[in-house]
Amino acid sequence: MKIARFEHEGKVGYGILEEDTLFALEGELFGKFHRGPEIAPLREVQLLAPVQPSIVVCAGLNYMRHIQERGLSPPKEPLLFFKPSSSVIGHLEDIVYPALSQQTCYEGELCLIIKRPARGITEGEALDYILGYTCGNDLTARDIMEKDGNNTRAKSFDTFCALGPCIAIGLDGSNLAIQSRVNGRVQQDSSTKEMIFGIEKLVSYISQFMSLRPGDVIMTGTPSGGLCPIQVGDVLEVEIEGIGVLQNKVVAPK
Amino acid sequence: MKIARFEHEGKVGYGILEEDTLFALEGELFGKFHRGPEIAPLREVQLLAPVQPSIVVCAGLNYMRHIQERGLSPPKEPLLFFKPSSSVIGHLEDIVYPALSQQTCYEGELCLIIKRPARGITEGEALDYILGYTCGNDLTARDIMEKDGNNTRAKSFDTFCALGPCIAIGLDGSNLAIQSRVNGRVQQDSSTKEMIFGIEKLVSYISQFMSLRPGDVIMTGTPSGGLCPIQVGDVLEVEIEGIGVLQNKVVAPK
Repeated sequence: MKIARFEHEGKVGYGILEEDTLFALEGELFGKFHRGPEIAPLREVQLLAPVQPSIVVCAGLNYMRHIQERGLSPPKEPLLFFKPSSSVIGHLEDIVYPALSQQTCYEGELCLIIKRPARGITEGEALDYILGYTCGNDLTARDIMEKDGNNTRAKSFDTFCALGPCIAIGLDGSNLAIQSRVNGRVQQDSSTKEMIFGIEKLVSYISQFMSLRPGDVIMTGTPSGGLCPIQVGDVLEVEIEGIGVLQNKVVAPK
Repeated sequence: MKIARFEHEGKVGYGILEEDTLFALEGELFGKFHRGPEIAPLREVQLLAPVQPSIVVCAGLNYMRHIQERGLSPPKEPLLFFKPSSSVIGHLEDIVYPALSQQTCYEGELCLIIKRPARGITEGEALDYILGYTCGNDLTARDIMEKDGNNTRAKSFDTFCALGPCIAIGLDGSNLAIQSRVNGRVQQDSSTKEMIFGIEKLVSYISQFMSLRPGDVIMTGTPSGGLCPIQVGDVLEVEIEGIGVLQNKVVAPK
């Protein structure tokens, strides 16, 4: 099942996507819900970021070939950083290339969406705390990361966390084809089975130190092959099996 | 003027503190408001964290003597990290010493509270975007920071960001006495005039890359002298001139 957050005729809400038609989601996204009446054909609605997380927790260096191409060593435990909620955009929203950077790069990633409050849970319990999956694009100003010596500014510019187009529920996230394209050309082509730390490990590990809330997002790291840097005008796509295609265009600052 | 967020007889709200009495705040905290009728004596209400930030942005290494005592070099630009909103607690709430750490430390800090959406503002405009000030205690599991090689886990445990007791409005934040005490003994004793990067610089710098929202918090760094590590049972206090005393007890995990 696919869930989308949308705006239509001035109203914002959640809907259930079936083929190219959006139906009302009646009930609670993080509780029980069912399909209501048809709202509109998909082409008539604007998709929004599928959730409004309190925080986005990201795993870095979680695919071996990506680590090798960056000349780094694999972490012994998940390597984590945050992206603030202010950086989140949805499908077809523009990514703004920061005026402060000349080397901004993208990273296609499988993202988990937390279903219920999660604190101190085991790997065995983790899947019960996941609502579903979406595609993510983790933007980084690598020149700023090098200058600052940390991720904070480099990963947190407004528009630097694209999520969408929908939430896929009922998938097995452990073996999904993941691909990213720049202007239609395939750059990353891998599977989530290549992750070093899997989905259950990430959810459990993060929940040992912080409380995760419904709608919070975990980005699970990127495979090798991302194009770096990107350019103003580029069209970025992240496609994950069973979810769909997240597309965003890179624009200059206003 | 001092503003407090409180719970009283099952209701949560904002009030205006005058001496030991809490009055209703009528209107909008982030807009226009005035004093309403008396709610209760202060001793009869429970103070809550004064805001519910979307994010807490922290400046590290922002007092020279603290940098020297840690054997580090001063940063050329503000050194920033995040604390997630899930880590925030208020005055008199307990700080939970993580089971994963044997070296958790505290840092007393002046905190700014953002008043209106702030993006790309200048230092000259910064004060117009600040609602007021509160005391903050930035907890860090230093052993985990060293093990991880980054701040993410070490600074983000639940209860690791104590804020309160109130929001002081109309202060000049640039020259306030700041003191921290452990079990009543003075450990840090400085002035906010010793900051390397001042309040206006921090607000402007952060707003160049990310949108700050009303209620977001900036922690401005800690002076020298903090006791490290703390112990279960310790009572930590952060007192800042014109604001008051933030007190929290350190407890073992349940």
